[in-house]
Amino acid sequence: MTTPAPSRATASVASILRESAERFSDEVAVVVGPERVTYAELWAQTKAYAGALRAKGVTEGTRVAMLVPNVADFPRVYYAILSLGAVAVPIHALLKQHEIEYVLRDSGSTMLVCAAPLLAEGASGAGLAGVDVVTVLAPPDLATGFDRLEALAEAAEPIDTYVPRDPFDTATILYTSGTTGQPKGAEGCHFSLIEQANVLLLSTFEMKAGDKVLGALPLFHTFGQTCTMNVAFRAGATVVMVPKFTGDAALQVMADEGCDIFMGVPTMYMALLDAATRSEARPTLKYAISGGAALPLAVMDRFREVYGADIHEGYGLTETSPVACFNHVGVAPHPGTIGTPVWGVDVEVADQNVEDAIVLMPPGSIGEIVVRGHNIMNGYLNRPDDTAKAIVDGWFRTGDLGTKGDDGYLTIVDRTKDMIIRNGYNVYPRQVEEVLAAHTAVAMAAVFGVPHETHGQEIEAAVVLRPGAEATPDELIDFVKDEIAAYKYPRVVHLVDALPLGPSGKVLKRELVAKFAPAHA
Amino acid sequence: MTTPAPSRATASVASILRESAERFSDEVAVVVGPERVTYAELWAQTKAYAGALRAKGVTEGTRVAMLVPNVADFPRVYYAILSLGAVAVPIHALLKQHEIEYVLRDSGSTMLVCAAPLLAEGASGAGLAGVDVVTVLAPPDLATGFDRLEALAEAAEPIDTYVPRDPFDTATILYTSGTTGQPKGAEGCHFSLIEQANVLLLSTFEMKAGDKVLGALPLFHTFGQTCTMNVAFRAGATVVMVPKFTGDAALQVMADEGCDIFMGVPTMYMALLDAATRSEARPTLKYAISGGAALPLAVMDRFREVYGADIHEGYGLTETSPVACFNHVGVAPHPGTIGTPVWGVDVEVADQNVEDAIVLMPPGSIGEIVVRGHNIMNGYLNRPDDTAKAIVDGWFRTGDLGTKGDDGYLTIVDRTKDMIIRNGYNVYPRQVEEVLAAHTAVAMAAVFGVPHETHGQEIEAAVVLRPGAEATPDELIDFVKDEIAAYKYPRVVHLVDALPLGPSGKVLKRELVAKFAPAHA
Ligand SMILES: Nc1ncnc2c1ncn2[C@@H]1O[C@H](COP(=O)(O)O)[C@@H](O)[C@H]1O
Repeated sequence: MTTPAPSRATASVASILRESAERFSDEVAVVVGPERVTYAELWAQTKAYAGALRAKGVTEGTRVAMLVPNVADFPRVYYAILSLGAVAVPIHALLKQHEIEYVLRDSGSTMLVCAAPLLAEGASGAGLAGVDVVTVLAPPDLATGFDRLEALAEAAEPIDTYVPRDPFDTATILYTSGTTGQPKGAEGCHFSLIEQANVLLLSTFEMKAGDKVLGALPLFHTFGQTCTMNVAFRAGATVVMVPKFTGDAALQVMADEGCDIFMGVPTMYMALLDAATRSEARPTLKYAISGGAALPLAVMDRFREVYGADIHEGYGLTETSPVACFNHVGVAPHPGTIGTPVWGVDVEVADQNVEDAIVLMPPGSIGEIVVRGHNIMNGYLNRPDDTAKAIVDGWFRTGDLGTKGDDGYLTIVDRTKDMIIRNGYNVYPRQVEEVLAAHTAVAMAAVFGVPHETHGQEIEAAVVLRPGAEATPDELIDFVKDEIAAYKYPRVVHLVDALPLGPSGKVLKRELVAKFAPAHA
Repeated sequence: MTTPAPSRATASVASILRESAERFSDEVAVVVGPERVTYAELWAQTKAYAGALRAKGVTEGTRVAMLVPNVADFPRVYYAILSLGAVAVPIHALLKQHEIEYVLRDSGSTMLVCAAPLLAEGASGAGLAGVDVVTVLAPPDLATGFDRLEALAEAAEPIDTYVPRDPFDTATILYTSGTTGQPKGAEGCHFSLIEQANVLLLSTFEMKAGDKVLGALPLFHTFGQTCTMNVAFRAGATVVMVPKFTGDAALQVMADEGCDIFMGVPTMYMALLDAATRSEARPTLKYAISGGAALPLAVMDRFREVYGADIHEGYGLTETSPVACFNHVGVAPHPGTIGTPVWGVDVEVADQNVEDAIVLMPPGSIGEIVVRGHNIMNGYLNRPDDTAKAIVDGWFRTGDLGTKGDDGYLTIVDRTKDMIIRNGYNVYPRQVEEVLAAHTAVAMAAVFGVPHETHGQEIEAAVVLRPGAEATPDELIDFVKDEIAAYKYPRVVHLVDALPLGPSGKVLKRELVAKFAPAHA
């Protein structure tokens, strides 16, 4: 979606790293296990990688895919691509070869930078798509058959600095299923990504050089990429990376490294609470940030008891760079809400039944959350029709149902597509999950609808119990029955060992439906 | 220069005021004499003004000129225009009717919002250009023959909120002579102006709600508009406005109101030092900011002695929104330099003799300062040729001569056009002025070249003595002779009561030449 520059001003997301390398050169940018990389080192390594990629033909507008876990090579590769004026296409680390092939083809990527541990699927996917592979993290003596970027970087001339871009040029293409359908590539431009970091630092979070943020969120996903990596690097703070998240590992590393800020999705908070039953270690957190899915109130309360910190919940989507709303740090969180719009962004509720126009609704109404401002993506790559459906009258339609209070605080009721209609009544799974989560035996719960002959849909739940706790499905059903209207409680509760989680930690309800109502999935 | 939106992201400079009205509603935004206006009040009044302007036909893209001094009506009118998606054309308050006519015609303004005290020239200029006038600050019973915006605002429906714009849409048109020629309208876009405020707050200044900034710089000029008004409002700080700057008044109001940050041009610092000889009052300043012209070292030192604060000098132009370089607050200033590039901006030295390309020069060379980044204007309105000459290979040519040290600090040697060539030798007036300013009897000095039959140009100086001090022209000439090479000292020194200053406080050297070498002016 590159258009001729309408102006002379330029920008680049790569400036985030370059400027911190000049201003905070000796501060530690990244900690991974025993490895410590300062800003000056990280930028020098990034310029070396960029030199190697340039020698391989990467130039302005080239799309380069990357399959890299949360290690220092993620920012090296990411900012190296962006420094060349190329477009970074980070791929979810859990994708299988055909899914990777799809992303490579759809994005028009000409190269895949693949971490050695992910080569099995990555190389196959690249092979299917006919795309070149270079590796990172491969030991020099391991014959993968591909060039090692580390070796290429030693041989190549590093770049001097980044190439300035038109601020609207696409910087990243992030694949998302959106509310429905096949994964689509959301194009985020340099302006949106830089302005997100500014707005989050100036008016939403509180972060500065010296702070240590746990980088547990996957960096290939918008939440970790923007809120953890770009924001922390813009501030000159330290990102303590966790290549493979578990509650126990995260708790330990936060305590060991003195992390003062945690960012995660709700399932990570549940895992941290669980880990705290096994460990005495407690980091001194200033605050914590949650997003990506609804945070159960019970989790928020338990986290404050156990970790002594407030969780500030926010809301956004890949298509909104991602942050749209937040319980701003510095203001006491309004539990159960997603807060108020971030600086310079409008978030409103629109009639979800009117498709070709945005009809805003008064406070208190339930409708579709719509967003406009600096954070709206350029569009879905090569999908003008989807883009036109998603962005109407200048507003991005989120596909989430929500409501705005008189105080301006927004609440998500549910995702449009997750809403269950039973006997003609709307049931919002989130409300039912909140009740289940308040049961002392429950660690995690997911509520979903399965097709039903007479009711249209029936309500079922999958529940993970807390370690050592016991409860029968009937007890849980009765517990919910006591709390909410009869048309809303789950008729069936499945006790499971774990919920199926997507790569960014969200519960995959489609998989639950497939598992428990296979005929209808 | 409105182009079709290349993206879905939007922005508006008006969000600066709206967001602070939500976040800092009860903080005082503006103090003028006894008047105190909170952010909530200022935004409500702005929305009322915008409603009145909308009723008068102002809409997206309309250019509205404004001739308003530093009072609360300046931000009201400015953000009202921007809220409607219209373009603000602030006019220098000292212009005469024909100059005003020129700006109105050249900018294509359809309306002039004129403060009553400036009506004599403003209304005449508007009459000549055939442009509608509405007034602010006119007493209700004064029959000016024009509508009062205050009255229109009472009758009109206020706007709900601002109209989002394409970030590259022009927000302001500011007239500047640039290095040569007729005034040209520099178009600044929403993106550049917002990003300037972000960058200055996050990485250049230190300012937050509770701080009180003296608003002495004229708000119609880019320095006051961006660095004082937009930055302070973005931070939720208070701007203490001084409608008519004198050193005595500024000193008194800073002390009375507890200002902790001062921003000014060098002549204001000289006036403040002068005022300090008559008054015991001293504000508690955290730091001070200087720009717009070279700050003599002697002034910096005296200011630290007298006011106990460091002056951080920066550099920029109307065409660069304005800030390009700064002695960043938080780092000890490097006196005599303009600091290092601000976040995300490149500032380099290029060969000034190569016109159609940018040939960067190594550290230490003297050449033309060139700038690129978020802060470059959209262009000169309706002057594609001038724009093409000014912006070459993506770099803006400043017309200033300077040099970059090995430490990355930049120094301005002089403006290209101010450089004097005497007998084939380059003489940089700034260097000579520095020497004169170090003489204990000298308050201000300006050095300029006048045409000369045999030497090409001759060096002359105009000097204002400090109150009570005495020195003859010959003494001053001898003083300089002792300090610098013989081809550089001024052959003639004129003792004057005051130097001719432009509306933004810069010495008008053209007027000195006209006065002392009338045949050649
Ligand atoms: N710190 C500084 N030292 C010397 N000249 C400066 C400085 N800041 C601004 N200027 C001058 O002011 C000009 C810009 O004027 P204006 O567009 O009115 O802001 C520049 O081109 C420089 O010549």
